Amino acid sequence: MELSKRVQEMQFSPIRKFNPIAQKAKEDGKKVYHLNIGQPDVETPACFMEAIRSFDEKVIAYAESGGITVLQDAIIDYFKMYGMDYKRENIMITSGGSEALTMTFLSIINEGDEILMPEPFYTNYHTFATEAGGKLVPITTKAEEGYHYATKEKIEAVITPKTKAICCISPGNPTGNVLTLDEMKLIGEIAKEHDLYIIADEVYREFAYDGRKVTSFGMLDEIADRVIIVDSVSKRFSACGARVGCVVSKNADFMEGMMKIAQGRLCVPTVDQIGAAALYRLPASYYDEMREEYCGRRDAAYEELMKIPGVICQKPGGSFYITVKLPVDDMEDFLMFLLTEFEDNGETVMFAPAEGFYITPGLGKDELRIAYVLNQKDMRRGAELIRLGLEAYKNK
Amino acid sequence: MELSKRVQEMQFSPIRKFNPIAQKAKEDGKKVYHLNIGQPDVETPACFMEAIRSFDEKVIAYAESGGITVLQDAIIDYFKMYGMDYKRENIMITSGGSEALTMTFLSIINEGDEILMPEPFYTNYHTFATEAGGKLVPITTKAEEGYHYATKEKIEAVITPKTKAICCISPGNPTGNVLTLDEMKLIGEIAKEHDLYIIADEVYREFAYDGRKVTSFGMLDEIADRVIIVDSVSKRFSACGARVGCVVSKNADFMEGMMKIAQGRLCVPTVDQIGAAALYRLPASYYDEMREEYCGRRDAAYEELMKIPGVICQKPGGSFYITVKLPVDDMEDFLMFLLTEFEDNGETVMFAPAEGFYITPGLGKDELRIAYVLNQKDMRRGAELIRLGLEAYKNK
Repeated sequence: MELSKRVQEMQFSPIRKFNPIAQKAKEDGKKVYHLNIGQPDVETPACFMEAIRSFDEKVIAYAESGGITVLQDAIIDYFKMYGMDYKRENIMITSGGSEALTMTFLSIINEGDEILMPEPFYTNYHTFATEAGGKLVPITTKAEEGYHYATKEKIEAVITPKTKAICCISPGNPTGNVLTLDEMKLIGEIAKEHDLYIIADEVYREFAYDGRKVTSFGMLDEIADRVIIVDSVSKRFSACGARVGCVVSKNADFMEGMMKIAQGRLCVPTVDQIGAAALYRLPASYYDEMREEYCGRRDAAYEELMKIPGVICQKPGGSFYITVKLPVDDMEDFLMFLLTEFEDNGETVMFAPAEGFYITPGLGKDELRIAYVLNQKDMRRGAELIRLGLEAYKNK
Repeated sequence: MELSKRVQEMQFSPIRKFNPIAQKAKEDGKKVYHLNIGQPDVETPACFMEAIRSFDEKVIAYAESGGITVLQDAIIDYFKMYGMDYKRENIMITSGGSEALTMTFLSIINEGDEILMPEPFYTNYHTFATEAGGKLVPITTKAEEGYHYATKEKIEAVITPKTKAICCISPGNPTGNVLTLDEMKLIGEIAKEHDLYIIADEVYREFAYDGRKVTSFGMLDEIADRVIIVDSVSKRFSACGARVGCVVSKNADFMEGMMKIAQGRLCVPTVDQIGAAALYRLPASYYDEMREEYCGRRDAAYEELMKIPGVICQKPGGSFYITVKLPVDDMEDFLMFLLTEFEDNGETVMFAPAEGFYITPGLGKDELRIAYVLNQKDMRRGAELIRLGLEAYKNK
């Protein structure tokens, strides 16, 4: 009774695997600053629970497999804000961005197909690709270059006849890299030339700072048939536990394939969809407020991180992550030290070692990712603890 | 930009595909009795929404990937009612029984592996198996024999070296067949001899009538390592739109594989889990009440169906479905007639043609499934409309 090969190839979440050790540190009385996971401390807008509380159907019935129209319409109006024009049949509601990606891969990837993936990248893509039998092929980027990948040379160097799609997470997790509309156009041209799908993971869409415009592959009409946008309420509205996302595409064949899978799993929970509809109807001022909040956190964390001797990091333009390179041979060993041996006034810090964000073996061992999901004061203190911890680690 | 082979092989839900035609009939002013889909009209117990309404965390955060402990503990106590003893690590919360099955297949099935499936069966198993590259191999059953399949001969006849698992939906969808504990033991012995997993889909567990005892593969300690129980709140608590289910297994390796997939998709929505915990804590009297309610509906529908000249059906012992054989060559054609040409006092009826519930080509063309999810009066009228419709169809 063996398990499937695919599940044997999968890894446990490298972001979550240090949780038991952090738990132990807390039980021993240490305060741990959690910069390791993208769980914001920002309050979920009250309209989410208010909408749910006022739901009064007597029977909690199956919803439509593609999603409830109230939510689809709210999403259509949300995209209109950015000049993008969708119809209900272009919007499929999913259980978070995660299911959107799982279903997308199952719909387009055959055993052995290749998917281009700028590395470092959000680790769960490993799982989504492996479920569909696909192979992630890295476009390797560097801390020294701000993790930039949008050049014809870099992308075409790894295209083969088996390449089926390119994934673009923008604003990026874990790098914070934000694609400009011109870079998106370039990727669109490459995709056209090599007949690729573009999987555009834009769940951090509004989190673009320093005057950067909100961009989306959905703004490019000339490649509308090959663009698959993945969206989610998790980060934008600090509603990770709502598990509501969607796939947006004007490719009717693709959406038809997705519907077959969607009907198999029946629907996304009704009440969360109702709550999510309220979130998507928040005014534009909400995004401005969030942008300002996260930008302040980024600045606080970045300023403090740059005080670490030997740190390599270009100021990231978006999302709520910073990946930095440090003069450390083995980041996991350093993290273990922070959680088990180090403390400063009874406090320590947790981050995500970046190795798990790479496909290429050996890369990322000297990098870490922090999520700036805590308030400015905590972000500063967390980054400071990394610096103090590193001093102690070096002097061990 | 082709779609994946798997998605091309999948079919749209045969239960849902007549919906647009039924919709048209309604727009034309006909009343349609929906006996086609397992969406009960029973009110969801109020404790579900009450628990959700009283949830007052400020941040809707990610839940644990395996589920919230409040729900796991409620499920543990629920199983204790039947003398089954589980720990939290044996319980993984999923987005309904659907995700439980998808994840199970992804965890144990390799490309080309075979899964034994008594036919007719719940059609979405096609989708779940295809997602994992597995092949459903039918154990064919007959209306004349009450769709009985639990014999050594029938099961062993289709076992090959590629067989990895046997699926048992009991009480059955769409047949209403209920396995006795002795039959489960027999299946357990066969599974042991041929080294198979048993996927025990027991979402209708309490819906067993005429003095039949509640049975579960979880009651058999000697095969605990090969049993994977799929459970759900959808039918038992009339909470289909909550999308909460679980996988229950004492096989630690299997549960570890499942956790890798679970971490990839992060978690099941928090508020639905909180609501589901309240449902699993309902007193045993709730099940008695539901059992009585559905048994009355079954009796009403069965009595009325048996008035149809030429009908073949053994009274089903459980779940809330009846599959019957009628003197009709093409049930889809008959259904089209009912929805587009027939009416009796402005009313007609919709059922699920059974062909989609079979793997073997050609089978089920003269069978239909009804779900007795409406009140007795409506069930009687629905069954009567099938009889009247058939008369009209024959006289056409």
